[in-house]
Amino acid sequence: MKGAKIKNVAMNKQLLFVKRPQGEADASTWSLETSAIPEISEGQILVKQHYISLDPAMRGWMNDAKSYIAPMEIGSVMRAGSVGEVVASKNPQFEVGQYVAGTGGVQQYAVTDGKGFYQVDPKLAPLPMYIGTLGMPGMTAYFGITEVGKVKEGDTVLVSGAAGAVGSVVGQVAKLKGCRVVGIAGGAEKCKYVVEELGFDACIDYKNENVASRFKEECPKGIDIYFDNVGGEILDIALTRLRMNARIVICGAISQYNNKTKIKGPSNYLSLLVNRASMTGMVVFDYATRYAEGAQILGKWMAEGKLKSREDVYEGIENFPETFSRLFSGDKMGKLVLKVIED
Amino acid sequence: MKGAKIKNVAMNKQLLFVKRPQGEADASTWSLETSAIPEISEGQILVKQHYISLDPAMRGWMNDAKSYIAPMEIGSVMRAGSVGEVVASKNPQFEVGQYVAGTGGVQQYAVTDGKGFYQVDPKLAPLPMYIGTLGMPGMTAYFGITEVGKVKEGDTVLVSGAAGAVGSVVGQVAKLKGCRVVGIAGGAEKCKYVVEELGFDACIDYKNENVASRFKEECPKGIDIYFDNVGGEILDIALTRLRMNARIVICGAISQYNNKTKIKGPSNYLSLLVNRASMTGMVVFDYATRYAEGAQILGKWMAEGKLKSREDVYEGIENFPETFSRLFSGDKMGKLVLKVIED
Repeated sequence: MKGAKIKNVAMNKQLLFVKRPQGEADASTWSLETSAIPEISEGQILVKQHYISLDPAMRGWMNDAKSYIAPMEIGSVMRAGSVGEVVASKNPQFEVGQYVAGTGGVQQYAVTDGKGFYQVDPKLAPLPMYIGTLGMPGMTAYFGITEVGKVKEGDTVLVSGAAGAVGSVVGQVAKLKGCRVVGIAGGAEKCKYVVEELGFDACIDYKNENVASRFKEECPKGIDIYFDNVGGEILDIALTRLRMNARIVICGAISQYNNKTKIKGPSNYLSLLVNRASMTGMVVFDYATRYAEGAQILGKWMAEGKLKSREDVYEGIENFPETFSRLFSGDKMGKLVLKVIED
Repeated sequence: MKGAKIKNVAMNKQLLFVKRPQGEADASTWSLETSAIPEISEGQILVKQHYISLDPAMRGWMNDAKSYIAPMEIGSVMRAGSVGEVVASKNPQFEVGQYVAGTGGVQQYAVTDGKGFYQVDPKLAPLPMYIGTLGMPGMTAYFGITEVGKVKEGDTVLVSGAAGAVGSVVGQVAKLKGCRVVGIAGGAEKCKYVVEELGFDACIDYKNENVASRFKEECPKGIDIYFDNVGGEILDIALTRLRMNARIVICGAISQYNNKTKIKGPSNYLSLLVNRASMTGMVVFDYATRYAEGAQILGKWMAEGKLKSREDVYEGIENFPETFSRLFSGDKMGKLVLKVIED
């Protein structure tokens, strides 16, 4: 065309959710699309998303089932927590150059009216931490162990997924509250990290040790709190070790998320009766009005060196499916994060 | 022998626990023995026991397993709640002629130091009621629905074992608290009794109706409290109908007590997470210091005609095994009681 100039236009890569998986989500679950970065309308902002969060709960969002959040629709951008920079704003609450966290989805640029997005400060903590210990996983851990678990000094606390984004914070908070804390994680390397870096009293390697006998060794008088991220057999064994008035916090059940058949219920649930114990489900969204409080407390502990955090950062939006599978294989260390765009 | 006179001496019939059952307890579990009524020592009383209580929990006491109470020892008198008359006393806290309730076991005469026995008044209520609605089952129901279930006006309450000693009181108390109450019972006759006599809003016949679809019909907006006496499939279906912040009270699991294999855990337990709900076990003994309060409240409601009670009374200590099996076959109506001695 006469006079037409080819401009080096930035494009937006988006990962669309195109097929509901049965069992494990494989690459055919998503489709990577490239399109122009959309214009924003009045009231909207454009966020250049640096990092997106990978969480076990995302597997549940893919199912067409009633849950604590609407199931994802086929053809929509894969839902995900994210953190990035405001690069355009027609919303008076946000300015270009600010960094924000929210649920921006697996895409390089997100257009949003700003609902659920809030400003973060990259000078106080690295960006990935705002979708980890200072984000949803940290809030889940903090409110889960304090409000639902009602942790108190002297409790014996058992935590599964102890090397993960939620479990690692649960255990450290319980230690700070004066508890004996025993973790459960997969593999010697993770267990070493949990004990030596995070300061748990012990960590049981469920892949290589006899979980039932190790529970007895490490919690000889039983457990006051079991913070459950995994479900399945480990929940069932934990039920046999309850002390009187014990609390089980049901935060997740990663061992069951990829099931194609009915999930395994806890056969030993009558231990709740014998021990006057409770099993209570939690969803972090219920504490939304208190996130600032939680982040302030966790941030203070981090600044004081009392709370440690590790992010396992992968790169490339095209690598999302492979990275996602690490959540379930356990082949990661700490909070799993994907960098989806160049700085 | 010269001069010996044959006296018509009263003897004591006792049912001894002689064999731990696998699965259902049959007649070989017990042995009926006859012996002289023992003399009492200083501090003891002799109770002529008119009625003994038959409760599903007794099946659990027979297992050699850690529970909320020590397992029964082989050769001991079968443990049971009882009500009777003090016929001899060397304990200043009790007088001959008083009526008392306690855990006197399946025997016609009980010798006890009086621990756990307390006076009852046969003029205020028939004796069997003191081991039913005004005894442990009533206390279980009252403290279970108020303290553990945290019942409040407007709740939708689902109760299994609705025609039984505990469930019938749970539902009536919930009605008095301003709830919609749906029972579950086995058979049309029991369901009719639960609705027409006890005043529940509805009753689902689990033996003849589709429980899942009837739950939907009767609790279209879901349930706030499920008071579970049965466990098994009904618990699993109830989990699918929870409202936000619902409470499940685990009081018993009669469907599982005779299992020879591992009991069935609730596959749908992750509904606790989705609905921020809880499942909490209870044992009535924890409320021992408040029994007087509970009995006073229930007694007042009975006197006012607001609370109904039905005892299904059988006769003859030798008929204990057959009567006991009615707990599990469901072939009884209301509180199951055995009269073990002539008045």
